[in-house]
Amino acid sequence: MATSRSSSEENGAPVVANTAWLPHWRCNIIALLLMLVFLVCCMAYRMSRVHQLNLDLTAEAEAETRLQSIYKLQWAIGKYQKDLVELQRERLREQKILELLKIGVKQAQKAQQEAVRNTPKISLPPTLLPNSLPQKMNTVSTGIAASCAMHNCFDHSRCSLTSGFPVYLYDPDEHNIQRTGYDIDGFLKTTLKQTLGYNAHIVRDPTQACIYLVLVGEALLEQDLLRNNRYAASHTHHCPIDMQKLYNLPYWGGDGRNHVLLNLARRDLCSRRTNALLQQNTMRAIVVQSAFELDQFRPRYDLIVPPILGPPGGDVWQECASMVPARRKYLLSFQGEMRPKTDPQGSNPLDDFILEHLTDMSKGPTQDQFELQFQCVPATEQQEVDSVSDWTLCGSDSSRKQLLKDSTFALILPPLNGRVASTLMLARLYEALRSGAVPVILGADELRLPYAETLDWRRAALLMPKARITELHFLLQAVQDADLLLLRRQGRLIWERYLSSVQATVDTVIASLRDRLGIPPRPVPPVVAQRVFNNTFAPLKAKIRLTILPEEFLGPMEPPYPSPTFRRNYTILRMQSKEAWNDWVDPFYMYPQLPFDPALPSDAKFIGSYTEFRPIGKGIGGAGKEFSEALGGNYPKEQFTIVILTYEREPVLCGLLRRLYGLPYLHKVVVVWNSRKLPRIELLWPEIGVPVDVVRGPRNSLNNRFLPLDVIETEAVLSVDDDVQIGQDEIVFGFRVWREHRDRIVGLPGRYHAWDVDSSKWRYNHSCSCELSMVLTGAAFLHKYYMYLYTYHLPQAIREKVDEFMNCEDIAMNFLVSHITRRPPVKITSRWNFRRRGMKAALSQRAKHLQNRNKCINFFSQVFGYTPLLNTQYRAESVLFKTRIPHDKQKCFKYI
Amino acid sequence: MATSRSSSEENGAPVVANTAWLPHWRCNIIALLLMLVFLVCCMAYRMSRVHQLNLDLTAEAEAETRLQSIYKLQWAIGKYQKDLVELQRERLREQKILELLKIGVKQAQKAQQEAVRNTPKISLPPTLLPNSLPQKMNTVSTGIAASCAMHNCFDHSRCSLTSGFPVYLYDPDEHNIQRTGYDIDGFLKTTLKQTLGYNAHIVRDPTQACIYLVLVGEALLEQDLLRNNRYAASHTHHCPIDMQKLYNLPYWGGDGRNHVLLNLARRDLCSRRTNALLQQNTMRAIVVQSAFELDQFRPRYDLIVPPILGPPGGDVWQECASMVPARRKYLLSFQGEMRPKTDPQGSNPLDDFILEHLTDMSKGPTQDQFELQFQCVPATEQQEVDSVSDWTLCGSDSSRKQLLKDSTFALILPPLNGRVASTLMLARLYEALRSGAVPVILGADELRLPYAETLDWRRAALLMPKARITELHFLLQAVQDADLLLLRRQGRLIWERYLSSVQATVDTVIASLRDRLGIPPRPVPPVVAQRVFNNTFAPLKAKIRLTILPEEFLGPMEPPYPSPTFRRNYTILRMQSKEAWNDWVDPFYMYPQLPFDPALPSDAKFIGSYTEFRPIGKGIGGAGKEFSEALGGNYPKEQFTIVILTYEREPVLCGLLRRLYGLPYLHKVVVVWNSRKLPRIELLWPEIGVPVDVVRGPRNSLNNRFLPLDVIETEAVLSVDDDVQIGQDEIVFGFRVWREHRDRIVGLPGRYHAWDVDSSKWRYNHSCSCELSMVLTGAAFLHKYYMYLYTYHLPQAIREKVDEFMNCEDIAMNFLVSHITRRPPVKITSRWNFRRRGMKAALSQRAKHLQNRNKCINFFSQVFGYTPLLNTQYRAESVLFKTRIPHDKQKCFKYI
Repeated sequence: MATSRSSSEENGAPVVANTAWLPHWRCNIIALLLMLVFLVCCMAYRMSRVHQLNLDLTAEAEAETRLQSIYKLQWAIGKYQKDLVELQRERLREQKILELLKIGVKQAQKAQQEAVRNTPKISLPPTLLPNSLPQKMNTVSTGIAASCAMHNCFDHSRCSLTSGFPVYLYDPDEHNIQRTGYDIDGFLKTTLKQTLGYNAHIVRDPTQACIYLVLVGEALLEQDLLRNNRYAASHTHHCPIDMQKLYNLPYWGGDGRNHVLLNLARRDLCSRRTNALLQQNTMRAIVVQSAFELDQFRPRYDLIVPPILGPPGGDVWQECASMVPARRKYLLSFQGEMRPKTDPQGSNPLDDFILEHLTDMSKGPTQDQFELQFQCVPATEQQEVDSVSDWTLCGSDSSRKQLLKDSTFALILPPLNGRVASTLMLARLYEALRSGAVPVILGADELRLPYAETLDWRRAALLMPKARITELHFLLQAVQDADLLLLRRQGRLIWERYLSSVQATVDTVIASLRDRLGIPPRPVPPVVAQRVFNNTFAPLKAKIRLTILPEEFLGPMEPPYPSPTFRRNYTILRMQSKEAWNDWVDPFYMYPQLPFDPALPSDAKFIGSYTEFRPIGKGIGGAGKEFSEALGGNYPKEQFTIVILTYEREPVLCGLLRRLYGLPYLHKVVVVWNSRKLPRIELLWPEIGVPVDVVRGPRNSLNNRFLPLDVIETEAVLSVDDDVQIGQDEIVFGFRVWREHRDRIVGLPGRYHAWDVDSSKWRYNHSCSCELSMVLTGAAFLHKYYMYLYTYHLPQAIREKVDEFMNCEDIAMNFLVSHITRRPPVKITSRWNFRRRGMKAALSQRAKHLQNRNKCINFFSQVFGYTPLLNTQYRAESVLFKTRIPHDKQKCFKYI
Repeated sequence: MATSRSSSEENGAPVVANTAWLPHWRCNIIALLLMLVFLVCCMAYRMSRVHQLNLDLTAEAEAETRLQSIYKLQWAIGKYQKDLVELQRERLREQKILELLKIGVKQAQKAQQEAVRNTPKISLPPTLLPNSLPQKMNTVSTGIAASCAMHNCFDHSRCSLTSGFPVYLYDPDEHNIQRTGYDIDGFLKTTLKQTLGYNAHIVRDPTQACIYLVLVGEALLEQDLLRNNRYAASHTHHCPIDMQKLYNLPYWGGDGRNHVLLNLARRDLCSRRTNALLQQNTMRAIVVQSAFELDQFRPRYDLIVPPILGPPGGDVWQECASMVPARRKYLLSFQGEMRPKTDPQGSNPLDDFILEHLTDMSKGPTQDQFELQFQCVPATEQQEVDSVSDWTLCGSDSSRKQLLKDSTFALILPPLNGRVASTLMLARLYEALRSGAVPVILGADELRLPYAETLDWRRAALLMPKARITELHFLLQAVQDADLLLLRRQGRLIWERYLSSVQATVDTVIASLRDRLGIPPRPVPPVVAQRVFNNTFAPLKAKIRLTILPEEFLGPMEPPYPSPTFRRNYTILRMQSKEAWNDWVDPFYMYPQLPFDPALPSDAKFIGSYTEFRPIGKGIGGAGKEFSEALGGNYPKEQFTIVILTYEREPVLCGLLRRLYGLPYLHKVVVVWNSRKLPRIELLWPEIGVPVDVVRGPRNSLNNRFLPLDVIETEAVLSVDDDVQIGQDEIVFGFRVWREHRDRIVGLPGRYHAWDVDSSKWRYNHSCSCELSMVLTGAAFLHKYYMYLYTYHLPQAIREKVDEFMNCEDIAMNFLVSHITRRPPVKITSRWNFRRRGMKAALSQRAKHLQNRNKCINFFSQVFGYTPLLNTQYRAESVLFKTRIPHDKQKCFKYI
């Protein structure tokens, strides 16, 4: 003791003297040293006291035995006390588990009650399919045929709401209705037959069909076909169709009820022959073609379809021009020639005025550039003769494409009076949309646009009456960039989905008729999971023993509850048909659920529609305690599925699985096993309270992450990497935020698409930033709907790029979701990264990885035609995070 | 020195001995004490050195003068050093200000460049108004009239896009076109004339008009009118209109071009007389009425309008039933009788089948209740005779209302063949929508629905062909609660806005014709601010001196930049007409900007459309530093206005104003002076760098907070109370978040509408909770659009309740915004409250305040028919809040 003290004494003065000139931190160290010294002193003092005790003991030797028994007693008491504490802790734990169980039981009881109450009262109508051939009826006169509408010419009894809209196709080879000597264009016949085969509605049994498709197609004289001379085709105006053959079709039923004549044009030529059915009595058959005379067209009965100018199917984005910049070289362009020339008497003074005015406008004193040609230069040969004048296209497909790519707007002039639609006009519309030139359709009020019952053309084109020609320039200038890009984007969407290819056309025709009848589409096919474990390979399981209690109660344990499916079958397309066709992009299939499904008003939860709602504090609200006991929000109770993509990292995977034990609202874990090598047979799979489905991808691909597997039974999917570091609280909070943004990606890791001014290219930015535009799917919630879209609707080129780089699937998903919603993702909580540390790849590999991601962003932008990503500058945090609250209340989450 | 040391020595041992048993914090104190001791030592040592120096001086006395000069020098050096430090600090401050200024200058230069580039190239077309009366043309035969469409019968030259759609009304008293002995129903004539007077399009000069309105109305024999016996009206089928009088109207121009015959029915009676114009040659005039025969109706030319059954104008919500519960007593109801009875030969077998099937269905083995009456009980007198059979209404208005309020769906049966619309059917539709019974319109494909060009009826009613009658029950059962409420809500929206009153009908008719012509509506009138300061009363101003520099750089100082107005004039209703009519609820006015205006794609910001964008780090992104220098986001640069509601609290107000000094992105402060007493003339108004407009409300009302004043020149409005405590960082962050949610309320104070199970009523919850549904407008951003809606479109009853309670205007705004968007508000940052402390009202007053707020929520729910508020469970925080970031980076905000 003395030694230690003296050392401090000796060094005392100089130390003090020095400290006066020392910087602050040294002072601290000295203070610490001093404290150490005193601690040593204190130790020494204690030792001396123990020594004293020993001295006392030796003095009173006879008390030793007594003392020893005291020691024993003390030891025993200590042990008992320890045991008691242990027991108390145990009891507390048990009690908490019991409470959890009780809440679980309550939930189960409630669910059972609901299940009883929810027993569907709906039963299917007795006969779903007609199961008979059309009965023979009397033939119908031209007069009656002309006034046909769905209610007086269509037999609904073959098409019940639950029928699924079965369509029968007359095999064009078997049932040739062409006049002798004519035949349908071979390309058309083959591809139509093939693409129709891919349609989900086609059935082979004519007794079950709702409608009967007859391929009429563009027909040519066989002799021309043989000579392979399409353009020198004969000038005969004979109908190439033998009407008697039509009437003799086996299921014609006398009047052609429920028959659809598919008369598709393929070439962009002015030809009356694409209107071969004019002045023919098609009786009650629905006519589908691209050219109609005013008297011929039966509104809401016949269907106008643009000519088929694209490939049979597959990716079409290469055909399109980039959507940006908004403004292109020419404000407005037009190339065409009226053929045959109209005689001056027959022409309309308004039409002449229009041409004059347009010419004046393009030469007027303006900074805007126009490219308006009303005569083809160089003049193309006048090969076709038609009795009705129309604006032919000039030049070649590629020369027109070039001009349209440089045009902000493309003028569409209607055919001369009397037609509501013409093949040439529709070909012009098709080409404009393809190249992103916004169509300006003059005389739109006199025309009928294709698929007008379902497509909202006002969002993709400027529709003007001819009388407004003098205001055209003014109007074009008044369109702002944002609106321009909106029009262009919508136009491309319509083109890609409904016009671009033979497949698109065929699907759209069938879907249009189906929509008109109010029959829901077929359910979208899920990807059937190929399970790794089966009868011959059962996994070994490892029970998890709850050794330490979870620190925080995050939510009740509930019985499994898959999201209800197809609840809105009969209402969604009835009420939201416009959205399905124009916004959500897929009216061809019925999805089990949509991220856009409506929420109930908040009072309905308490009055009338309380079933399945879990309001917080039973409606009264509350802070953390009540919050953790119920999901609340605007939607009924639900659960989520975790999808883990893994590749031969069994210990990492099992570690992650173990951490999911006891996670509330978890419905199931789906492990996508991305390797040919199966998991080791001796691997112990942790039992985590919910099923773990291990599924093999068709091949090793990052695209497997987004397979819409049938084993995923919830709307909410949490997509995670196998090496993810994510807390149960973060997951539960993310789930809650996702429930408010069901149409967006909600997750932890934020990223940014940065613009590099020097190279004029996008770069992938992964460093901390205050703005972000992507949330990586290594740890994010998303709606299962987007997994369908990713797998079935994303252009193939994107999935291929993902395979090529073994990278970027998360970027692709962000592109897709922002493209559909025009919204950024939602980042939650403070963590920027989500991976297990110490798993860093080599630096060079990492650089390569980032380089590829740069490439991906730029390539995907090219495929989409623009960059759909949008920016966001905030992140979602739990409501009481870092908030001072009264002592009697509990935060929403302990740490987040 | 020795003393101090010994004291430490003496106390050393016991101190150490004690510390061993003391809790940890005492140890710390002891350590501190020890440090003090050593510091004292060190002081003593230094003093001893100084002493030594003094000794030397006395020894060498002659050096004293030298020394004194050294002292002086030292003092001078000390002073200089102090000055230097001060100067350095000053320089740093100046430098920072300079930097700010430089950024400001850059912004100003950029803005100037943009201004030059943005000079609108658009010039108005030469003649805006025709300035002449319609020229005399030849009369037109019935045949030509029958094929009238806009392109061949309407003179567009009177209606340029920029004309504002002027409408001339023939004074019905001056230009009576009734046959002698008849007169228009007096109520109709008076109220129509009056309500048309409120319409913004009416002009008095016939030379400028685009269309000419002729009131035809429901006419009665004057003798009946005199006898006041509407129902015993004569059974004559004479047309009550003297066509010759019509043709002789001063501006008829021979063929009635641009004339609109407003033939509005008022009574829900079966009467061919509402179709008085049948078989009359109306030439080119557009016919607006509720009953049309198939051949008579000219699609996209004539207009179908339901009968006028409501009050002249004003609030109509009292007429409606609550929307919840979703399911009511009867699944489906119908009350009606076919009159005159059809003879068995004339009836359609399908119609008979329908009645039989419906009767069977209602008696079938089902839990669902039906109330279907095809005969009126008790039988009403058959007063009216009409040649066309139709379903008359049974009972009285109130008896029908009672039944419809108990019906989930209301069946609408069409009139017998040949009519596309009938007054009775539309009356039935009107009543169903009013009471929230979702209309099920059978045979909808044969009918034409009112305003079908603009209103999307699929969202408000179930439309079915007659052929699906057997599937009706199945379909009704398949509608989920959420969809049911969506249909009901949409139906009520359509009813309230377009059908409910005479004013609604008149406005809708004019807007429909305007929409058809593609002419934008009139701009919405702003409330002209009544400024407190004028020529006679100029405020005294107080300069603010920047004594301490703001701790954090939050954004550049920019020149004032009001939000561009009316940029989408000519596109918005062309592209988004459906949304304007069906979602945004106001197609009657053009708003300067909408919260729904589209964003540009992110690449357009860098390619082509870079004007006015402020990307972060010029596109490369970044953390706090770059973030604070630019707004970023998806929209162009913009600023916001702060609106302060104040009531005779001048010091509080001035304190708030002073704190706004130097706030970036602030465009202007508008103080709404809510008192008759003007501010004290001697009050010093702080000069804060932006204009402060002090505006007097029309009277002391909390509704003044949301007046759409003309002095508010930005889209973003930050609404604050005068005693608000809010940091500049919180404001800037809130502004950034609002820019991502322009259609929502974004602010600090969150509140919750809690459901009290016992009373089955809503309660206002202001305590901390993990879920919220309101953000109070005492400190919140909102779009100016909602201020228009609040002032012009909210039912009067709500604004009156706000005045009655002097409370709840914030709750009303939350109701309104959630009603329009169906989304919850966005809460930002951790603060739950926002008021200055120490300003607590008396407890009883506070209790009263809360009670009134409870009442408000329940009353507003009643007015809206449901509770539009929705829940949210997260809050927005800046991206790097509480995040560990690399040392070279800066957070987005220092404290939030």
